[in-house]
Amino acid sequence: MSKAKNTSDAAEQAGRYAYEGLDRDLHEKARLGILVALASRADGALFGEIKQLCSLTDGNLNRHLKVLIESGLIEVWKGNENHRSKTLCRISRAGRERFAAYLSELEKVLRDAKAGR
Amino acid sequence: MSKAKNTSDAAEQAGRYAYEGLDRDLHEKARLGILVALASRADGALFGEIKQLCSLTDGNLNRHLKVLIESGLIEVWKGNENHRSKTLCRISRAGRERFAAYLSELEKVLRDAKAGR
Repeated sequence: MSKAKNTSDAAEQAGRYAYEGLDRDLHEKARLGILVALASRADGALFGEIKQLCSLTDGNLNRHLKVLIESGLIEVWKGNENHRSKTLCRISRAGRERFAAYLSELEKVLRDAKAGR
Repeated sequence: MSKAKNTSDAAEQAGRYAYEGLDRDLHEKARLGILVALASRADGALFGEIKQLCSLTDGNLNRHLKVLIESGLIEVWKGNENHRSKTLCRISRAGRERFAAYLSELEKVLRDAKAGR
């Protein structure tokens, strides 16, 4: 293989494994779990449910919800039931689209990793 | 559905989306890219190649390699070619096993996310 060929291969391959689509807002382990949980619940899920489903503490869940809200991935609704305040979380329409794009990138990672085995 | 049934469902579902297998050492975006790149190269890859494949700066690649070395996921070899020092990186045997386990967890995330769509 000539040097020129090598150089052109390298250029073609540049960024091959950069995975820019693995946006940190969605890729972080706990937030990914929260999004998977919410993606399957069109009506949303209560704070307490998400906490249990994702094995998170109150503090950690609050911290991750803040990131997800600020990046527009989820919506949060406050309500009351029997004089107890409740927090309902739902994936937003934009969040659903960004999550679908993220999942496509994740599939690419898996394809690449399998191709290499 | 009775309250008892609800409670038992919730208990069954606890930790359903915790994804403990998404180990931060491997899950971080840049390190994941480095591992995918190395997984397909039994002979390893040079520092410069990885840098280009993963679109990383020298500083960032060094920082991520340090984490991967310290967690035993990769091995690093120093050498010389035409009086220039070269760094060769290879995924370790243990690293290959941990990476396979990580990929299984990633497949679970994708299955769960698809089930919810």
